[in-house]
Amino acid sequence: MATVAIIGATGYGGVELIRLLHAHPHVRLSHLSSETYAGQRVCDVYPHLAGSEHALQRFDPEAAGKCDFALLALPAGRSMETMPRLLDAGARVVDVSPDFRLRDPSLYHEWYELEHSCPDLLAEAVIGVPEWNREQVKSARLVAAPGCYTTGALLAVAPLVAEDLIDPADIVVDGKTGISGAGRTSLHLSFHYPEADEDAAAYKVTGHRHMPEMVQELQPLTQSEVQVTFTPHLVPMARGILLTIYVKPRKGVSAEGLRGAFERRYGDEPFVHVLPEGQWPHTKWTVGTNLCFISVGVYRSTGRAIVVAALDNLGKGMAGQMTQCLNLMLGVDESSGLTLSATYP
Amino acid sequence: MATVAIIGATGYGGVELIRLLHAHPHVRLSHLSSETYAGQRVCDVYPHLAGSEHALQRFDPEAAGKCDFALLALPAGRSMETMPRLLDAGARVVDVSPDFRLRDPSLYHEWYELEHSCPDLLAEAVIGVPEWNREQVKSARLVAAPGCYTTGALLAVAPLVAEDLIDPADIVVDGKTGISGAGRTSLHLSFHYPEADEDAAAYKVTGHRHMPEMVQELQPLTQSEVQVTFTPHLVPMARGILLTIYVKPRKGVSAEGLRGAFERRYGDEPFVHVLPEGQWPHTKWTVGTNLCFISVGVYRSTGRAIVVAALDNLGKGMAGQMTQCLNLMLGVDESSGLTLSATYP
Amino acid sequence: MATVAIIGATGYGGVELIRLLHAHPHVRLSHLSSETYAGQRVCDVYPHLAGSEHALQRFDPEAAGKCDFALLALPAGRSMETMPRLLDAGARVVDVSPDFRLRDPSLYHEWYELEHSCPDLLAEAVIGVPEWNREQVKSARLVAAPGCYTTGALLAVAPLVAEDLIDPADIVVDGKTGISGAGRTSLHLSFHYPEADEDAAAYKVTGHRHMPEMVQELQPLTQSEVQVTFTPHLVPMARGILLTIYVKPRKGVSAEGLRGAFERRYGDEPFVHVLPEGQWPHTKWTVGTNLCFISVGVYRSTGRAIVVAALDNLGKGMAGQMTQCLNLMLGVDESSGLTLSATYP
Amino acid sequence: MATVAIIGATGYGGVELIRLLHAHPHVRLSHLSSETYAGQRVCDVYPHLAGSEHALQRFDPEAAGKCDFALLALPAGRSMETMPRLLDAGARVVDVSPDFRLRDPSLYHEWYELEHSCPDLLAEAVIGVPEWNREQVKSARLVAAPGCYTTGALLAVAPLVAEDLIDPADIVVDGKTGISGAGRTSLHLSFHYPEADEDAAAYKVTGHRHMPEMVQELQPLTQSEVQVTFTPHLVPMARGILLTIYVKPRKGVSAEGLRGAFERRYGDEPFVHVLPEGQWPHTKWTVGTNLCFISVGVYRSTGRAIVVAALDNLGKGMAGQMTQCLNLMLGVDESSGLTLSATYP
Repeated sequence: MATVAIIGATGYGGVELIRLLHAHPHVRLSHLSSETYAGQRVCDVYPHLAGSEHALQRFDPEAAGKCDFALLALPAGRSMETMPRLLDAGARVVDVSPDFRLRDPSLYHEWYELEHSCPDLLAEAVIGVPEWNREQVKSARLVAAPGCYTTGALLAVAPLVAEDLIDPADIVVDGKTGISGAGRTSLHLSFHYPEADEDAAAYKVTGHRHMPEMVQELQPLTQSEVQVTFTPHLVPMARGILLTIYVKPRKGVSAEGLRGAFERRYGDEPFVHVLPEGQWPHTKWTVGTNLCFISVGVYRSTGRAIVVAALDNLGKGMAGQMTQCLNLMLGVDESSGLTLSATYP
Repeated sequence: MATVAIIGATGYGGVELIRLLHAHPHVRLSHLSSETYAGQRVCDVYPHLAGSEHALQRFDPEAAGKCDFALLALPAGRSMETMPRLLDAGARVVDVSPDFRLRDPSLYHEWYELEHSCPDLLAEAVIGVPEWNREQVKSARLVAAPGCYTTGALLAVAPLVAEDLIDPADIVVDGKTGISGAGRTSLHLSFHYPEADEDAAAYKVTGHRHMPEMVQELQPLTQSEVQVTFTPHLVPMARGILLTIYVKPRKGVSAEGLRGAFERRYGDEPFVHVLPEGQWPHTKWTVGTNLCFISVGVYRSTGRAIVVAALDNLGKGMAGQMTQCLNLMLGVDESSGLTLSATYP
Repeated sequence: MATVAIIGATGYGGVELIRLLHAHPHVRLSHLSSETYAGQRVCDVYPHLAGSEHALQRFDPEAAGKCDFALLALPAGRSMETMPRLLDAGARVVDVSPDFRLRDPSLYHEWYELEHSCPDLLAEAVIGVPEWNREQVKSARLVAAPGCYTTGALLAVAPLVAEDLIDPADIVVDGKTGISGAGRTSLHLSFHYPEADEDAAAYKVTGHRHMPEMVQELQPLTQSEVQVTFTPHLVPMARGILLTIYVKPRKGVSAEGLRGAFERRYGDEPFVHVLPEGQWPHTKWTVGTNLCFISVGVYRSTGRAIVVAALDNLGKGMAGQMTQCLNLMLGVDESSGLTLSATYP
Repeated sequence: MATVAIIGATGYGGVELIRLLHAHPHVRLSHLSSETYAGQRVCDVYPHLAGSEHALQRFDPEAAGKCDFALLALPAGRSMETMPRLLDAGARVVDVSPDFRLRDPSLYHEWYELEHSCPDLLAEAVIGVPEWNREQVKSARLVAAPGCYTTGALLAVAPLVAEDLIDPADIVVDGKTGISGAGRTSLHLSFHYPEADEDAAAYKVTGHRHMPEMVQELQPLTQSEVQVTFTPHLVPMARGILLTIYVKPRKGVSAEGLRGAFERRYGDEPFVHVLPEGQWPHTKWTVGTNLCFISVGVYRSTGRAIVVAALDNLGKGMAGQMTQCLNLMLGVDESSGLTLSATYP
């Protein structure tokens, strides 16, 4: 049994990690940190985690560093503060913050308005999308999980870019997210129930931080320049992300051709399901799981292609993705702890 | 006081018409038809319309034709059956079905799989978007209201096409609708609460019927070919439509330039509000109203422009739009019966 | 045209007052106070109130006092601070805070943990339930609107107590409220969308502040002791209150007998609708209105009676109720500005 | 590995059974019947059950009877049709229909308006609430699972009746349910998204069928007559049931006394959690689990006690309960397949 620390254990991502890892056959939760609830047991703070009697503690880098693995669910800027000590202490880390996603520290500075405190570690960080870099993840010391929007966009576009089936300079990503994506601590008016309920709206239009991360991951797959126009929307549900992606197929590429690329790439993947022609994904199918559903089609009248992908922002978009990476790093079955199907309806 | 018939008075659109016209200073509801509830009073079927003691009747073309105006809220195919008799009897008609929207009966046949029964009337039909053809609506005998998605798309794209600020062959419309858009009688599993709740999904991908209607209305505004890629989505709310539209600005056209086109066009419009830079519309602002909010921006990195529009699918997208047209045809203040603000929150 | 001040104009109650009074034929909004948004126009803060160009100001007791009427939508403790000055300046006041509801200042102290600063005004305050004290409201200088739960409970129980049809010592009130009842400024975790969505829970069990207010208003209607057990619940919707009330009918009293009491009392009331046998109210019927729907039945097996009442917590439970009182004080048609029907669906 | 048939495998209860049993260490799904989807695989009908490649078949009593266990998720009247054949063929059965719950066939006739076709089997049927009759369940051939409302009410009231701490003739049960309780096939207008969304209402007031079932189960625990007044409500969420129960404590019985009864009874139960004083259950804590949370308090002013219980109508109220009974009948760990915690938020 590997020992695991969860840093930031009482946010939505942390709680989902506890849910998944509590039942995981190969790991033992060893250090659960929470600044807000230090001193309480998990089950006191979250009665629904009735079986989790682990004590929550203030973050103790030493204790965490002694664990075999540290899973970081912290906001931007906080992960990089502690990363060197954790790695030095010998822990292998999966980090879902943005701190180690962008290879170029000046991009990080531009988009997150923070000076990177350990840019030397950036080169080592492996982006945690096993479907695209499984081997690297296996041996990584530091995995940067790309999070919800970027993961979905990569899974849904990368096969088409890699096989040069679309124009990489003309990618439009329209995202719709459930509101748990906003986290549990930022009690902003936008997430106040009477405001968010019965409302749909775009946010961070023309400048969402995940745009450069999408570009960075897609660019190496092609010689041509990648350009992504990304707009996220808030829709009234707790969980789930739907990505509707508009791309321009290369001349002569049909819907079947596009679907073929997905099937070739994901045919053996345990968590990515390519739907048959004419069936389109629902976010509800993914709630509580590490699954991602993808479908593709072409508009006869305009020639434009559409890819739709659904995933759970806290599953494949966060805790599921981190667990999948952990499994790979640990050398166990990639699906360990991730065999749940969705709570439907 | 003009006499008004509502044909299809107990669907969501019909009920909203009753709500608006019940309080309208210049009209008197005279014939309310409902096949399902004939013989009952409105307030018996809908206790919330406590003041509406009108009797519901089976559709009586003669009675309806004698009214000054007939408002038709019927499904595809049903409006054209009755239209000639209503017009012959002297009524002026506002029809929210698709039957008189497409000028070309072969397109109607292609998209609705119905043979048009009175194609001779198509030439006469005036599309009911007062912001674009107010004078024609005023004198029309037959107004075809374009409905929710098309109205929103026209309002949000037409100024840019008309001023040649964007490439009309590259318009992507991503729509998100509340579920009342599905109507009240089609109790399909997709609209069953446990299925639609906490879910987001695209539907009728690559082939929604409103696409050709959008193209038809935009094409006359430009010499170049118009192409629209349109994908609707269902999101879990009762009312409201959000349209996110991706377009390619002509060289040198800035966000300010695009906003300027909206302000020039809609500056004096009572129901279309152009938001200042950086503010984006919420569907919640429109619930129960005839308002449409629009904003626009440009992605620095990709040069692509985005327009977001919000309206109430049963308001400006249906009953509000029909009432606005009625006011124009009647020669009264265009805002009569439409001064309500949204029920917020 | 009477001049009206709204103090606390940008909370949910204040905004609903603006919506109602903006279209009111006999009043002119004259002073709109908001500490948070002072200096901005209403339509800048709330784009959906597109027609309201009134400037928001810091509360100015002098300006407010000069108005014919002041409508106070402030939290507990804040109304009593300013009440004497407003009254001295000549304004007549409708206050929806709890400050002037409880006649006994020691009860106020017990339940609100505040010392009452002007207990001398308590005797003068008239509870604003026109269905029960219309004449007093007409001539009142200070009306204390009882708010959502208490108004619903009074309307649903008072006729039965007044006609001695039930045991007043055995009244159980089970309330379900939409989340706008929590207001707009208290961004508590309980009202964070991901927490409140898809959840039902009781709150303030065994000790909600509205219990003594219900008892106070019912007690004068009977010689026997009134006892009310009240439990509120939060259910995932923005607006609406449903009250399910369990009472014990006096021997020999049937469901028809109970319904008769409601019909006698409310038969001529414009805003309270007694439903026929077997029909039960929905909160959706009341959204945006001043309506209250009531129905009653008896359990054959246990002999217990049930009354169910639905109202809009921001309508008859707040802004509608205040407007109705204002109309009475003003001597105009009691329904002025309140003729809207519900936004359905 | 025991072989298991699920009869009615594609309704909400059936699907939840598949989800739970798919991952169950001691059973193998062997016959999955569905009239609607016969011939398809589970994962074709429900893409979210991506791993379930079982074929769905028309119900085959012979095949089902050969299984070690048959789990019936059928509507009223359908279970009794097939029960004798299943039992004769040697299967042990857990049935969640109402057909075998009421011991008295005349009561069944009265409430379900059906003649019971095999009343001789009623005496044998064991009600499936392990917390109250674990030993009987273990050896039963036919278990009648009591379903959502009744299970919750029993768990929340039985300890108080059994210890004579309350007046059993004065029990008021106010239930709030998510809409999946209505099932997946009855596409009634009441469950149409635009109608059910943003609405709260009581239904089947004064005559819900679960009332006599509650009385039947509680009566044996006391010498005095049991009387239950039960009113269910629909609230806008997919899953979850909250029961608010008002009872009259015997003289001198305090809140601590009542809580003590729950703790004595459920202290060692794996699925029933008694909350500490002042903490009240949320339905969200139970989604996807077999858990039931209970808390209790007393109103100082009226002396009345309140018990609040939360469970998942498809979990402890259906598929979880059936699985728990199956585990007992099978002689394996009662928690097998039921260790999931809730999907939160």
